[in-house]
Amino acid sequence: MPANRRFTLVRRPSGTPVPDDFRLTEEPTPMLADGQFLLRNHYASLDPAIRGWMDDAPSYLPPIRLGDAVRATTVGVITQSRNPDFPVGAWASGLNAIEDYSLGSGGGFTARIDPDAVPSVTNYLSSVGAIGLTAYFALLDVGKPKSGETVLVTGAAGAVGSLVGQIAKMQGCRTVGIAGGPAKCARLLRDYGYDAAIDYRGKSYEELVAAVREAAPDGVDVHFENVGGDILDAALLSLNPKGRVVLCGLISEYNSAHRGARNIWQLIVQGARMEGFILTQYVARFAEAIGPLAEWTKSGKLRMDEHIDKGIENALPAFLRLFEGSNDGKMILQLAE
Amino acid sequence: MPANRRFTLVRRPSGTPVPDDFRLTEEPTPMLADGQFLLRNHYASLDPAIRGWMDDAPSYLPPIRLGDAVRATTVGVITQSRNPDFPVGAWASGLNAIEDYSLGSGGGFTARIDPDAVPSVTNYLSSVGAIGLTAYFALLDVGKPKSGETVLVTGAAGAVGSLVGQIAKMQGCRTVGIAGGPAKCARLLRDYGYDAAIDYRGKSYEELVAAVREAAPDGVDVHFENVGGDILDAALLSLNPKGRVVLCGLISEYNSAHRGARNIWQLIVQGARMEGFILTQYVARFAEAIGPLAEWTKSGKLRMDEHIDKGIENALPAFLRLFEGSNDGKMILQLAE
Repeated sequence: MPANRRFTLVRRPSGTPVPDDFRLTEEPTPMLADGQFLLRNHYASLDPAIRGWMDDAPSYLPPIRLGDAVRATTVGVITQSRNPDFPVGAWASGLNAIEDYSLGSGGGFTARIDPDAVPSVTNYLSSVGAIGLTAYFALLDVGKPKSGETVLVTGAAGAVGSLVGQIAKMQGCRTVGIAGGPAKCARLLRDYGYDAAIDYRGKSYEELVAAVREAAPDGVDVHFENVGGDILDAALLSLNPKGRVVLCGLISEYNSAHRGARNIWQLIVQGARMEGFILTQYVARFAEAIGPLAEWTKSGKLRMDEHIDKGIENALPAFLRLFEGSNDGKMILQLAE
Repeated sequence: MPANRRFTLVRRPSGTPVPDDFRLTEEPTPMLADGQFLLRNHYASLDPAIRGWMDDAPSYLPPIRLGDAVRATTVGVITQSRNPDFPVGAWASGLNAIEDYSLGSGGGFTARIDPDAVPSVTNYLSSVGAIGLTAYFALLDVGKPKSGETVLVTGAAGAVGSLVGQIAKMQGCRTVGIAGGPAKCARLLRDYGYDAAIDYRGKSYEELVAAVREAAPDGVDVHFENVGGDILDAALLSLNPKGRVVLCGLISEYNSAHRGARNIWQLIVQGARMEGFILTQYVARFAEAIGPLAEWTKSGKLRMDEHIDKGIENALPAFLRLFEGSNDGKMILQLAE
């Protein structure tokens, strides 16, 4: 019976997580009950939302319990099974944890996956997984962009933001991306087809407002928010009548007090809408998006960059890249070769 | 030719308007061109939105020009006319100004009104005017309340809020109103049919959060916001999944810096929506609401309280009541007997 190394939450973080909030524990792999299977996790998805699950606050998912491994979506290979739908040797993904082995029973978000349908099995954690589904439904179903409209995206070089820009272009929109630093801004234009890029670093609020006005001279019809703070307030000032703000993430405030948005008065003046997106409300519609996302990924129509760090012992620094912005693409932790 | 007294903006207010921002001017009534008519204003509607028009800021209507009378909706009688559709002796309403006489030409928001269709001609400035239309469309079209849902209303004893509570009850909703002081809270329960009332005065943010949780134990499905600030943040914490926040007004910040909303993260967690309402986007649909609003007003099904102050010389103190909360019902200024 192989040992199961687990990235375990032992203390709730105050602000930015620190090493003492976690412990790398080692346990025997669990015994299988009827209907269960054991998944050898090869890759775990590191997402900003995980930070919220570490808090002891009521939310759309229960908090991670102290002493439990940190919750994350993983993909892996089934190594033992007492469930005929999930046979040994098959690949599966699910909302599991950052650990070598996860126990599955096939419910919830667990699904068999086909490694041959995509260029890399890690795509099930990126463009064909929660990231792609989020970009697809949040942009198309909440933002409802129309051809000729201007779509502004923050965190535009991030996993979700890079896909949102590309899907918005497919809709015939003009796309403006905001990211931190000249290298990321260059990638927006070169790799993700953005029509304009804004580097937010070193800019005051007033300079951000001016930069958005210059990059979106006809105003913003859809603002896709991953970051929050001054950037969101600047975007609100350029919102067009009947504009739509998709609140997908507020990563700038996940480790600090809630700052929110000061310029919500613009929603009144423009008769505009700000709507939160949470993927768990779209489970029944996943199938309609998986097909096109897999096809676009396989054909190369949708470029998906992945940043893969290796080893469970690197879980925390890899996770913190999300908040430092030091990742280039979807952040993934590799747990097995 | 009678003199035309006008409540004229001579300086843009900084914060709360003060007497030196205005002057009571007197001019000859204007000469009529072909197609024009002269309206003797009997009543002017005093609304929080007027404060925004005094600022030199781009908005859904141009700022009031310095030297112009303060823009307001009025009702009055036509005393001269070179427009056959608006004959002498007829009543009309329009987006005019706080002045004895306004020049009309029949475009925009100008309309003939029938004093016999309502209990009082002032109802065209309240339940059958912009106030009623706002309550009707903002609640039903933006908030989309369903029978059995909980509707929370701030400024609930105000002109719009008192109607929103009553229309929400007609939809089979449970209604919770927030207002300032025990007298207003008593009116919420007695006059406007609210199921529960919360007095926000003297309450800390934490106490507001607890009061909303207690008054809406099943959570809030539709939050109708007229005020903003701590109350809005407290309401956001009780929002149910797929909840709707109707941003109708933010009167608490019209005379100060924009404070906004800190808890917009709740929109993400709940997959909820915050949407601004601006009546000018609904002009094409006014007719569908005027009928029911007039009928409900005439039959007494919809109670509309009006607070009428007299005399153009009292325009400023009457207007400031809106921000002090010292009005009991829709604030109207009477300009002629």
